[in-house]
Amino acid sequence: MEFKVLILGSNSALPAHGRHPSSQFLTVHNNHYLIDCGEGTQMQLDRFDARKSRINQIFITHLHGDHYFGIFGLLTTYNLLRRSFPLQVFGPVGLSKMISTVLDSTGNSLNYSLEVIEIEANEPQMIFEDSEVRVLTFPLKHRIPTYGYLFEEKRPSVKLNGHLLDKYKVPLDFRESIRAGKSFTSTDGTVFPASIFFEKTIEAGKFAYCSDTAPFPLLEEYVQGVDLLYHEATFLSVEKDRAELTQHSTAAQAAMTALRAGVGKLLIGHFSSRYKNLTPFKKEASAIFENTHLVEEGKDYFLD
Amino acid sequence: MEFKVLILGSNSALPAHGRHPSSQFLTVHNNHYLIDCGEGTQMQLDRFDARKSRINQIFITHLHGDHYFGIFGLLTTYNLLRRSFPLQVFGPVGLSKMISTVLDSTGNSLNYSLEVIEIEANEPQMIFEDSEVRVLTFPLKHRIPTYGYLFEEKRPSVKLNGHLLDKYKVPLDFRESIRAGKSFTSTDGTVFPASIFFEKTIEAGKFAYCSDTAPFPLLEEYVQGVDLLYHEATFLSVEKDRAELTQHSTAAQAAMTALRAGVGKLLIGHFSSRYKNLTPFKKEASAIFENTHLVEEGKDYFLD
Repeated sequence: MEFKVLILGSNSALPAHGRHPSSQFLTVHNNHYLIDCGEGTQMQLDRFDARKSRINQIFITHLHGDHYFGIFGLLTTYNLLRRSFPLQVFGPVGLSKMISTVLDSTGNSLNYSLEVIEIEANEPQMIFEDSEVRVLTFPLKHRIPTYGYLFEEKRPSVKLNGHLLDKYKVPLDFRESIRAGKSFTSTDGTVFPASIFFEKTIEAGKFAYCSDTAPFPLLEEYVQGVDLLYHEATFLSVEKDRAELTQHSTAAQAAMTALRAGVGKLLIGHFSSRYKNLTPFKKEASAIFENTHLVEEGKDYFLD
Repeated sequence: MEFKVLILGSNSALPAHGRHPSSQFLTVHNNHYLIDCGEGTQMQLDRFDARKSRINQIFITHLHGDHYFGIFGLLTTYNLLRRSFPLQVFGPVGLSKMISTVLDSTGNSLNYSLEVIEIEANEPQMIFEDSEVRVLTFPLKHRIPTYGYLFEEKRPSVKLNGHLLDKYKVPLDFRESIRAGKSFTSTDGTVFPASIFFEKTIEAGKFAYCSDTAPFPLLEEYVQGVDLLYHEATFLSVEKDRAELTQHSTAAQAAMTALRAGVGKLLIGHFSSRYKNLTPFKKEASAIFENTHLVEEGKDYFLD
């Protein structure tokens, strides 16, 4: 049972230095979600053994190509793999027309149900809920309508005590319901409260994804107190004017948002292709917010 | 001076086994062309050091995603790289609407002139000509309108004699015009016919690209006598029924077309993801047409 995010792409618009456009594969207990889907995402999912067939929701932040040009290939691949489960795609207005224009041209109809949910939000808004998470969206500040996403885990992460499970002969099938807090009744009728099997409990956590965006005060409220924040850092401070012009953030600005929002851990990414060496990003951000990590493709990041 | 094709993608629709969707980078003397543009083509161009900024024409065979989903990213990247040269894209009806729908959504206008030329052809038709090639298109037989392309070199490939160039002090700038057959006048007024500098001349050649297609008798006429034929071979003969159903070819069918058309060399590709090991393709095709090569990504293929 875990809450972790696998980085599929870490670069900004121009793929360079072996870095790919934006995409992340989020796991919350039994469920998996895709956030952004830049060109090549389906290959990156395969490359890092992420179970793409298990994705049932895709969240697109905005309609700049480096955040969604991979969706056409992924949706087509699902069809070729004979997917039957429904798929939901969340994103800004315009996404639905685009997907239907492109898929219609291929002359194939989808085997599975595809629901595109277009977002228009001026303030945080709950858009999705399942057994594991609640997902809120909130507006970011970019050149075109752009949305961040906040994933709130609905139950703690529980590690069970293997020794006690064996001792009381708890069948494998029951372990998931114990984690969910349900008591276990043994064959002789003894009722065991779930909590006696808990070895370690990690409080339900929150993960926020903010890309692309310029810094703005309200953002600190939107992501206040999250355990894990992914925030774009396209530029270094030396390029602050360019960041402002293009409505992006510097590493220092991302760190300042993390600091003011009191988050647990900061991940930065969406690096401009002008930077081959990323060490200065770490230095610049961690001087302001110490628990900063530069995202690396193929690596999992957990809540602390 | 050369006539060669670099393979960027060799697989059919589902990327697998490290193989990518269709794309080829064609060089004819000083000019470069892209044929098909599956997802990830811009990364493959970079990976194999192909000079993507030198591409001025892109030829799309049909609107199945594995042949064109990479075009949105490539066109956007040209913009970010501040391309100023015009770009022409040839392809089936529907391509223009798709490109404009997708690019409009990004909110950016292009820095360069983009001309999309939509093809409708029931028989071979000349669609393009520049200093190096004439390009004809011809209809293929597939589930949606699909076009093959024939590239006819306009002048022979000439290798100059370095020893004579040095002896008569021919400046570097003049070498290109000598290759093109123009005489050279030295500083003392002596006129040298171009041909005295020719060490080796390779006749002007022809390259045809046929993907995706089922076999059909007219195709042998369309590609009659070409020096180099790229023909799809999605399946082995054991899957002949599936090939027919999906309007694809087997390795044996591709080889039979090459044999009947009397081509010089056959390249086969567009392998189904069901095949990890491709050795049986080589065996099946070369039993019918000996000079068959399985395309490998990153490798250049020349006219013999």
